[in-house]
Amino acid sequence: MTQPYTATTESHKTSMLSRKFGQEIINYFSGSPLNRVSFLRSSTAFLRAALPRSKFLLMRDLEPLAASKTTLAWVGYETVRELVGNPFDTEEEEFLRGYDSRVEIPTLVFLGMNEEGTGGGGGGESFEFEGEGGKYVGGPCFALDVTEKGSLKEECEKVQEEAVKGAEGREFRKVRLDLSLVPSDAAILAQARSLLDWNNRNQFCSACGARTVSVHAGTKRICPPSDKAFQKDPEGPPFERPPCISRKGIHNIAFPRTDPTVIMAIINSTGDKVLLGRQRRWPKDFYSTLAGFCEPAESVEDAVRRETWEESGVRVGRVVIHSTQPWPYPANLMMGAIGEALPGGEEIVLKHDPELEDAQWVEVGRVRNALQESTGTPDVEVEGAIEGQLRLPPSTAIAHQLLLAVVNGFHLAKL
Amino acid sequence: MTQPYTATTESHKTSMLSRKFGQEIINYFSGSPLNRVSFLRSSTAFLRAALPRSKFLLMRDLEPLAASKTTLAWVGYETVRELVGNPFDTEEEEFLRGYDSRVEIPTLVFLGMNEEGTGGGGGGESFEFEGEGGKYVGGPCFALDVTEKGSLKEECEKVQEEAVKGAEGREFRKVRLDLSLVPSDAAILAQARSLLDWNNRNQFCSACGARTVSVHAGTKRICPPSDKAFQKDPEGPPFERPPCISRKGIHNIAFPRTDPTVIMAIINSTGDKVLLGRQRRWPKDFYSTLAGFCEPAESVEDAVRRETWEESGVRVGRVVIHSTQPWPYPANLMMGAIGEALPGGEEIVLKHDPELEDAQWVEVGRVRNALQESTGTPDVEVEGAIEGQLRLPPSTAIAHQLLLAVVNGFHLAKL
Ligand SMILES: [Zn+2]
Ligand SMILES: [Zn+2]
Repeated sequence: MTQPYTATTESHKTSMLSRKFGQEIINYFSGSPLNRVSFLRSSTAFLRAALPRSKFLLMRDLEPLAASKTTLAWVGYETVRELVGNPFDTEEEEFLRGYDSRVEIPTLVFLGMNEEGTGGGGGGESFEFEGEGGKYVGGPCFALDVTEKGSLKEECEKVQEEAVKGAEGREFRKVRLDLSLVPSDAAILAQARSLLDWNNRNQFCSACGARTVSVHAGTKRICPPSDKAFQKDPEGPPFERPPCISRKGIHNIAFPRTDPTVIMAIINSTGDKVLLGRQRRWPKDFYSTLAGFCEPAESVEDAVRRETWEESGVRVGRVVIHSTQPWPYPANLMMGAIGEALPGGEEIVLKHDPELEDAQWVEVGRVRNALQESTGTPDVEVEGAIEGQLRLPPSTAIAHQLLLAVVNGFHLAKL
Repeated sequence: MTQPYTATTESHKTSMLSRKFGQEIINYFSGSPLNRVSFLRSSTAFLRAALPRSKFLLMRDLEPLAASKTTLAWVGYETVRELVGNPFDTEEEEFLRGYDSRVEIPTLVFLGMNEEGTGGGGGGESFEFEGEGGKYVGGPCFALDVTEKGSLKEECEKVQEEAVKGAEGREFRKVRLDLSLVPSDAAILAQARSLLDWNNRNQFCSACGARTVSVHAGTKRICPPSDKAFQKDPEGPPFERPPCISRKGIHNIAFPRTDPTVIMAIINSTGDKVLLGRQRRWPKDFYSTLAGFCEPAESVEDAVRRETWEESGVRVGRVVIHSTQPWPYPANLMMGAIGEALPGGEEIVLKHDPELEDAQWVEVGRVRNALQESTGTPDVEVEGAIEGQLRLPPSTAIAHQLLLAVVNGFHLAKL
């Protein structure tokens, strides 16, 4: 059963690039309806004005408050006011001067403006901000971590309770990898999840080991120069922390991390077979494209060749990047590529890096059939599955889109 | 003056993908001659045997020991033996049990095997290793940080001195962005630089603030469960550190970070102009393509559209990814794309995110001329530069390759 998700966009149909390269694949988890207006995150004037008019996506242990299996739920400022206050009343400089590592602050992340206005799709009430760059109109959206822990436990529990009561059917819902959320909500969830997770994992400075604090509405973490927690005289000057390299210049460690990965449909040199692999933990007939992490100082094309060789022994020549997909577990960016095995380099050898249980060259026709008739996620049991029938990932997975492109002749010369 | 660097590969010429998509652009800093054999980094048996037969690239303050302006210098094990010993004599488990945060360990990173054998191009003496996956043959290469600091200051200075004396003309050379190293050495340097820098910036665990230690030959850093530095009784059990989430399951914070960025040649909807921008710190006539960081849960295509709009106000429709380039300052991965402005979305507005001093639509013919006659890096003064003559990045920069692709009609429908 192919899922209803159609991964194409109409809006670029008429362009020259679309004529040559076809329509763009908008992969699941991308194509967010929110405008991130990233340059406004450092404007306390903007954030201060937007906050009370915003909608909030609540997350508990990285799982969202959902209205149903397919849509997220949003709450207004009144539900979270007691927990968050208005942290943007204070300018950043003053906030840092008063930094006290003993005080726990809930993680609040600005996601963007829903330009489709009020209400649905996550937008708050329609809001206008006259910035230096012009007028920005839309419904501002935040994500808020309400996991019950530490000194904020009780307040978080209260927010959770009230939010769930807000409407029938609301619950904190484990978003399974069957990817049942509507695509626009999935894209918003992906952003919220990656950013809250990054804040969680970076409570300490990796350069000096001191506690960090979130600024720019949850999109930057810095190592403050002083900390009131260690101040001996409460009336005296703040305790100065030892120097830290992260306070000089710009450092990537202050910014959210995204891990580039490669995922590739490799075709054989005669163009009639595709390389598929199977992880040990997958059900017996489930296969997918090969994938792996990009390494430092490696192009995507080089990573495709290295990972394919390490996992399957197959040597790849030309690589073309097809499309990309964010994957928020926790913060991967999948570069989908189509590559061609070198003539003479097609022998499968699994023992270099024994990550796969099996890899096989599968005929394009068999792949086409499976894409049409037998897809799903590896963790969902399929009733009436026929033994020996190839199963492939659903259309929400970029692996599916890459295989579909091959089946549709993406790699065939049109000369 | 266009640089002699030709960014194409011959080896994929005959494939179906090359026939349709053209030859692959092997961008500068990619296409390393080393096989990373990443699965062997966790094999102490391999590392222990390889180390004494390896060649070492020495780095001081992230700058390499170079033989000349165009090539790196390598030293043998005898030059570094006193500083590094053989850290792979101990299995990882035992090493971690004995972990003592007071003991400084020089940062040593396994880069890979030069399969072209002995000597040149960075390979050590030819070495064979019979692993579970078969026989691996080549010259093993490591990078070693010999920056004179902390308790290793004197030993590092000694290694530096001896290494420089090893051959005439050797020096620790600041690799400028004029990118004069031969491409194969540039790719090796990029890997060494990104990995040493990552080790430097991640001396502490971002999840708990404790000191981390390098394992897997410099490609993983973990938060050890115990530390002899805090052990009261030297005969007693090791001091157990508080629990840390990074010790359960797999966490990205243990692995090297690579920051995906987008860089894009945007063409107007009639296909005759390209969008170019100028940063404030660049010389007056120097322009390039727009660029920026990918954000969490953003596809490359979405990031191209967001960054283009934020920096220039231009709205982009279809985006096609062209090629990628590692950029080791410190660890960026540039996704080069070609995008098309939406009809009616071509007005330039600089004030959203005032990062650029100027952005302009430039005629394709003028771009073609500049690529042929007037390229260079923004920090190098050009003698006899004519005022008002457009200057563009050199062929070693992916920006140049993207503009070249547009000039050569990459975006024009062939129908
Ligand atoms: Zn710090
Ligand atoms: Zn830790």
